[in-house]
Amino acid sequence: MEKINLKDKLSKFSDHWSPKVIAEMNDYQFKLVKIKGDFVWHNHEDTDEVFIVIEGSMKIKFEDRVVELDEGEMYVVAKGVEHKPFAENECKVLLVEPRGVVNTGDTEGELTASNDVWI
Amino acid sequence: MEKINLKDKLSKFSDHWSPKVIAEMNDYQFKLVKIKGDFVWHNHEDTDEVFIVIEGSMKIKFEDRVVELDEGEMYVVAKGVEHKPFAENECKVLLVEPRGVVNTGDTEGELTASNDVWI
Repeated sequence: MEKINLKDKLSKFSDHWSPKVIAEMNDYQFKLVKIKGDFVWHNHEDTDEVFIVIEGSMKIKFEDRVVELDEGEMYVVAKGVEHKPFAENECKVLLVEPRGVVNTGDTEGELTASNDVWI
Repeated sequence: MEKINLKDKLSKFSDHWSPKVIAEMNDYQFKLVKIKGDFVWHNHEDTDEVFIVIEGSMKIKFEDRVVELDEGEMYVVAKGVEHKPFAENECKVLLVEPRGVVNTGDTEGELTASNDVWI
C-alpha cells in the first residue's frame, strides 16, 4: 500500500457532506469530508464515530450542548447519541468509523451520501 | 465526553516510544506517541495499525522498502507485516489500533511499553 497525504486527497473533491474513503484498517474506514452549513440531526445506533478537524472549525450540536472543534481537535460521538454537525465556513474533517456507516445514520434524506466512495 | 486537543495532549509527556491513549471508539484506541531513533522489528499478528504524522517526519522500514511519512501523512501497516519505525529527529504520531495492542507486537523487549496508559 502507498502512504496517504491528507491535503492531496482533500484537493481531489469539493462537494460538501459527502465523505470519501481514503484508507481501511481491519473493518474500519478513514474518510475525508468537507462540511459547510447545517447537517441533519441523526445518530448511529451501532457505533461510536470519530471526528478529527484537519482544517477550519466546526461545531457539533447535542441535545444539551454544543461542542466546538478547531484544527487539531477530535471528538468521539458515542453510539446512539443524537447529534447535528454544522460549520459556518468550510471545514475539512477526518472521520473514523466502521465500514458501512451511512453519514445520516437513522435519518435518511437529501443529505444521505453514497457510501464507500474512495478517492 | 470532552473534546481532545492533540497539541495539548502532546505537551503532557516527553518520553519516546511509549504510546499514550487519548480516546476510545468502540474497541479501538487513539494513541499519541513521540518517537526518536530506532524501534525494533516487529509485527502485529492480529491487526492492521494506522500511523498519522502530527508533527515532524518518520520512516517505516519494511523487508523490501522504506516509507517516509511527513506531517499530514498516514499509513496503514497491514496485519502480520514486519516493520521497523524510526525517526532521525523527534516525530509526533497518532496511532489507531484495537485496544490491547502492544507496541512491540511479537518482539517483547526493552522497548515494550506499558499498555493502556491514558493522558
